[in-house]
Amino acid sequence: MKININENFARLQKKYLFSEIHDRVDKFKASGTGNRIISLGIGDVTLPLSHTVADEMARTAKNMSRAEGFRGYGDTAGDPILREAIKKLYLSRGVSLDSNEIFINDGSKSDIGNINDVLGDNDTLIFDPVYPVYFDSSIISGRRVHLVLANRENNFLPLPDDIPKSVSDKALVIYICSPNNPTGAVFSKAMLQKWVDFALKSGSLIIFDGAYESYIAEAHLPHSIFEIEGAKECAIEMCSFSKSAGFTGVRCGWTAIARENPIKPLWERRQSTKFNGASYISQRGALAALSPEGASGCALNVAYYMENAQIIAEALTKKGIFFTGGKNAPYIWMQCPCGMSSWGFFDTLLNKAQIVGTPGVGFGNGGEGYFRLTAFNSRENILEAIQRLNTVL
Amino acid sequence: MKININENFARLQKKYLFSEIHDRVDKFKASGTGNRIISLGIGDVTLPLSHTVADEMARTAKNMSRAEGFRGYGDTAGDPILREAIKKLYLSRGVSLDSNEIFINDGSKSDIGNINDVLGDNDTLIFDPVYPVYFDSSIISGRRVHLVLANRENNFLPLPDDIPKSVSDKALVIYICSPNNPTGAVFSKAMLQKWVDFALKSGSLIIFDGAYESYIAEAHLPHSIFEIEGAKECAIEMCSFSKSAGFTGVRCGWTAIARENPIKPLWERRQSTKFNGASYISQRGALAALSPEGASGCALNVAYYMENAQIIAEALTKKGIFFTGGKNAPYIWMQCPCGMSSWGFFDTLLNKAQIVGTPGVGFGNGGEGYFRLTAFNSRENILEAIQRLNTVL
Repeated sequence: MKININENFARLQKKYLFSEIHDRVDKFKASGTGNRIISLGIGDVTLPLSHTVADEMARTAKNMSRAEGFRGYGDTAGDPILREAIKKLYLSRGVSLDSNEIFINDGSKSDIGNINDVLGDNDTLIFDPVYPVYFDSSIISGRRVHLVLANRENNFLPLPDDIPKSVSDKALVIYICSPNNPTGAVFSKAMLQKWVDFALKSGSLIIFDGAYESYIAEAHLPHSIFEIEGAKECAIEMCSFSKSAGFTGVRCGWTAIARENPIKPLWERRQSTKFNGASYISQRGALAALSPEGASGCALNVAYYMENAQIIAEALTKKGIFFTGGKNAPYIWMQCPCGMSSWGFFDTLLNKAQIVGTPGVGFGNGGEGYFRLTAFNSRENILEAIQRLNTVL
Repeated sequence: MKININENFARLQKKYLFSEIHDRVDKFKASGTGNRIISLGIGDVTLPLSHTVADEMARTAKNMSRAEGFRGYGDTAGDPILREAIKKLYLSRGVSLDSNEIFINDGSKSDIGNINDVLGDNDTLIFDPVYPVYFDSSIISGRRVHLVLANRENNFLPLPDDIPKSVSDKALVIYICSPNNPTGAVFSKAMLQKWVDFALKSGSLIIFDGAYESYIAEAHLPHSIFEIEGAKECAIEMCSFSKSAGFTGVRCGWTAIARENPIKPLWERRQSTKFNGASYISQRGALAALSPEGASGCALNVAYYMENAQIIAEALTKKGIFFTGGKNAPYIWMQCPCGMSSWGFFDTLLNKAQIVGTPGVGFGNGGEGYFRLTAFNSRENILEAIQRLNTVL
């Protein structure tokens, strides 16, 4: 074949982080040694769906075999009833958005990647460490990526003053994830205001990833970038039912772009050209997850995970190991013991305790020496993992 | 905001075709005149899902509220059982593909757009008229588009000899849709062999859209590009459950890329970075649609639509109006009467008969003077539409 391919792929690491973990675990399993493996690795929910949500999806699916219940193509931007429900969710947080400023998708990972379609050539600012999709999708799009360290010195919450001098005068595409994956750190309103002010001044665009907002326990912390004054002009927000309602397999999320933001019409055109809407069944499930009954079922699951997080946090505290997160996020970001490297600690945990976590360096070089544990597992497995951890640490 | 946006959007027509139709229909409705509207416009299925499919999705959804039935993130490329079933579908057509050469998605429109992510700067060849997504997504990606006319002279089936001389010596990205949307024309094996031979010789890539393959009635016509010798090296195929199983609202399809094709690893990396798999519930529904019971339910629906197509075809034949399609495709591509323009006939049909069709020119300038009618409606509506058509024609 002689056609030109996208050469930017050659600039990516060979494997997506979680594929590499998968391969190492498979290799260990093939060795046939050790206890059963407990995964505190990939950030995937483990509790079943709330009955309210599952029942609504089952009812919808069943109804699709009846003339009166069948649904074909829906609005590309999502079912109007679901968009209205999300509008109300925002209202409950003091954020006023129109339902036509809300775009339903099949999960926020898709849109975090797809948003690049509407962007031109820009310098990009990404925290290090961070969810690898921002970096990889920017590289695929051929954008120049600048990193800003999220480290112990800045409590893993970099501010505009930390932006490298070489790019601080440019209009940037800035990715912010809060509560953060992997560090669990959460920006306060005052801190986010600094980012919004910087974006407005510099003409930058903030892509705010709120996938973990439902894990926020402290009332003063913002759930949405739109709680910040001026954000509608300079920020867009990606959100998801994956971690709030257990939709990692069901697939539904949304992107919010206010009419004040000039990229809104481009995004509308992009979506009507390259997307045909999320599954109607998933959208009905999402709607049920926002109902009072559904929401309380989802909140129970979140509370369960956060109790897991507390158990892990207490064990690490007892051992005197430094960590962040676990308070307003389902992730614990721990320092590897004895100055071990991230992958070194990964292999140690896998081989000695049959626990799978995520090497911090997988989220960027700034994560070297750190390790991410997730609270997504059964209580039994968490307690067993802690026992095993105690023998290794 | 000062960031650069993707300027290619300015090269697109302002509205996606079906949005424009939607707006004109809304305006007519607001006038409060005429009979109820019958839509033979957007190519959307109307019959409910087969019970086998709906029951399996309902069962799956219900099970997701139980520990043993819950599913989180699946394989980004799709559930292995579904990929295996699609592999068997190919085998039944004499095509041998590995299940890891099949990538499940949320519908083929997404991948038709997303495939651009792995392509570099290339000249693109698109039939005119054709499904607007090929053109629009190529423009968004900044590619140079060359058109090749599909017209009455070439039976709406252009061949490599028709390629504009200015680009016939280049490696091209070539979109082929067969059965064709909008013309209903279907390539024979011998004709597709010419395209594959051209692609192999020129180093081109064929993107084959087989969304309508289940409507093929004549046994000698190919359902898949991979039935053609040499296609694995130079072609990829997009397929969908939308039209075969009524999944326009459920969302599931697939892309097939053989290991002989050098873009396969790039596509794998693209998907693991920017996609998180199709809804597990939809995938289970797709699996049920491929079961013997599900497949026979789906075939009944296809047969129903094709009877509709025959009714429309007979009416047009009686009136002496030229048309193609309706034989191996759910679309009838008719010449507008009395030399009317496509939009002129659209407005006439809407105003005088309250029938909504699709203006041929909406599929490219080569479609001017033509009009697309779909067989996707109830028998009652088709018969009523024919009566009304008879008064207008």
